[in-house]
Amino acid sequence: MKSFSRIPQHIGVIPDGNRRWAKHKGLRKQDGYESGLRPGLELYEMCLELGIKELTLYGFTVDNTKRPTVQIKAFQKACVDAVEYLANKDADLLVIGNTESKFFPKALLPYTERTRFGRGGIKVNFLVNYGWNWDLNYSARDGATASSGNIVDGMASADISRIDLIIRWGGGRRLSGFLPIQSVYADFYVVDEMWPDYDSEQFYRALEWYQRQDITLGG
Amino acid sequence: MKSFSRIPQHIGVIPDGNRRWAKHKGLRKQDGYESGLRPGLELYEMCLELGIKELTLYGFTVDNTKRPTVQIKAFQKACVDAVEYLANKDADLLVIGNTESKFFPKALLPYTERTRFGRGGIKVNFLVNYGWNWDLNYSARDGATASSGNIVDGMASADISRIDLIIRWGGGRRLSGFLPIQSVYADFYVVDEMWPDYDSEQFYRALEWYQRQDITLGG
Repeated sequence: MKSFSRIPQHIGVIPDGNRRWAKHKGLRKQDGYESGLRPGLELYEMCLELGIKELTLYGFTVDNTKRPTVQIKAFQKACVDAVEYLANKDADLLVIGNTESKFFPKALLPYTERTRFGRGGIKVNFLVNYGWNWDLNYSARDGATASSGNIVDGMASADISRIDLIIRWGGGRRLSGFLPIQSVYADFYVVDEMWPDYDSEQFYRALEWYQRQDITLGG
Repeated sequence: MKSFSRIPQHIGVIPDGNRRWAKHKGLRKQDGYESGLRPGLELYEMCLELGIKELTLYGFTVDNTKRPTVQIKAFQKACVDAVEYLANKDADLLVIGNTESKFFPKALLPYTERTRFGRGGIKVNFLVNYGWNWDLNYSARDGATASSGNIVDGMASADISRIDLIIRWGGGRRLSGFLPIQSVYADFYVVDEMWPDYDSEQFYRALEWYQRQDITLGG
């Protein structure tokens, strides 16, 4: 286990490249998602060991649900499987996404309130059927925000804190709608390998890179 | 002049590294901003030639105004100088920022409504004393958003469209509060050189890179 003089409090993960990985392997695109499960669990275990306080994972988005049904079913299942695994571990889990849509997996409804598994200790936020616009407009519901004057307080993701480091797998250098408000000051590290090819060395390199960044929070 | 098969409609520019550049040259930190003017004007001219439809430049932010007064004065002056230059060119300029604060340069107040210079033709958005939180909360003023239900429509930057490509100079891989909503799907290209060392080749490399990106808008 390596050690770091400064570790991020909150890491965001964009696990991209499942379909490209599957295609490259000669599999069907939808088969990529199952192979994305192991990486997520390994990364979670590593965060536990490192003492990371909060971890946010991009499950799937409202935008993603425009894809073929067979793919949608595959990434929905991967999300449910991931939560079933976590339920036997230590985590304070919150699933965040638009539950009023048919694309939200019903099995995950109980976790849309933060739920302690085991001894808890690490906040795990899992974005499932998440939409940045849905998140933002949540604060306009019932005119709730008009009274406080602070949009951020009324967002669906208000319980998710500012992100220090975002790591994206699959080579894309974009946020693709990932928590725009929590990401405003985040350092953004891109891993060229596809997510199913996750290796702890990639994660370590991101943390090493993060240590060399000068954190100013925009100042 | 190079040609590109696909150019971004809207480019965002984060011109970072002025102070580090000045320090490296043995100058005072505040002297970096004046040297950031030439790059901005060259980049603007290049966007005109390429037929870019919209260009957003990060002037300075509410976060930046925590710096020493001598630096604040220097970047305020650079912003006013930039607008004076543009006034003799072709552009549809909009200056966006918190005008209710003492840090907003009074000389720029007339341009907080979009103003045509010459024949116009390129939308130039200039963020001056801009704050992401200010921008967002603008839609909560007078409960305006509560009626429409769409936060984005009420934001101070509602007239600025979705960004296709963000180019940041100075090596930082973060948005630092730059238009979080318009940036949700943007491809993010980082130039390691400091902004005063701007060279058109850096801009061309960003455009070449952009052409190879697979634009999905999150889908």
